[in-house]
This record gives sequence, C-alpha cells and structure tokens, in this order.
Amino acid sequence: MKISVIVTLKKDVLDPQGKVVHQALKGMGFNTVKEIRQGKYFEIDIDESDKKKAEEKAQDMCKKLLANLVIEDYRIIGS
Amino acid sequence: MKISVIVTLKKDVLDPQGKVVHQALKGMGFNTVKEIRQGKYFEIDIDESDKKKAEEKAQDMCKKLLANLVIEDYRIIGS
Repeated sequence: MKISVIVTLKKDVLDPQGKVVHQALKGMGFNTVKEIRQGKYFEIDIDESDKKKAEEKAQDMCKKLLANLVIEDYRIIGS
Repeated sequence: MKISVIVTLKKDVLDPQGKVVHQALKGMGFNTVKEIRQGKYFEIDIDESDKKKAEEKAQDMCKKLLANLVIEDYRIIGS
C-alpha cells in the first residue's frame, strides 16, 4: 500500500528556499504570486494491506525520522 | 488562493535520496517498507480568486521553473 506524506515548515519558521523560488518566479513575470513555501514529499510503499495500520506506521516514521517536529509539520494524505 | 504542487521524479529515474531514507528506516526497524521515493512540495499563494486560472498559472510555473520535465512529473492537488 502506498502512503503519501507531506512535510512542511511550521507557519512561523522562515523558509529561505521558498523565498528564492518566489524571487525567481517574480523575475520571470509571475507577479501575482504572494508567497511560496516549499516542503518535502514522501511516497512510502508499505507491505501492509490494512490502510489504517499503514497510516499509523507512516505516522511513526514521520515522528522518528522524516519530520523534525520542532520546526516542521507533517500530514498524511493517503495514497 | 492557495495551490499545492507536488513534483516527483519519474518512475524510471533513480532516487538516491529516497534510497537513503529507506535504508535509515530499515536500520530503525521499519522492515515492512518496500520503497520510498522523495519529491518536492510547493504551496503557492496566488493573488487570483478563480480556481481554474490559479491552477493554470501554477501549471505554467511548473513547466517553466518548478519541475524539470525531462526527469520529473508534477501534479497540482488544489489547495
């Protein structure tokens, strides 16, 4: 079963990477962009047929490795 | 309007970053993980109230800057 996870910086944490992308887009003429924030995306293929169990496992991985909970949030978006 | 974009490596492209995460998870005892692929996530705040127009603009940004279409795919997942 495939589980997708998105890890983003918390709202109050500065995102220099996103800012650079924002500047680049502005330079290319995309003037209507107000803000860009960048995050990480993980597609996890788990050998587990039960969706709930797979999601629990993914959550566990986020807490232990994939996300730094001091500055990042994660959310699991199913498959 | 906020638009979310996920950029992933194409299926046939090697993902060393994902492999490292996979190895790390294995080392931590997550033995049921079959594969992990990592990608990028962008949250774009566009000054545009029409959803369709905003998505079109996001698509344009992906083609021109956010994704390298030779090796990457992108998908827009609304807000």
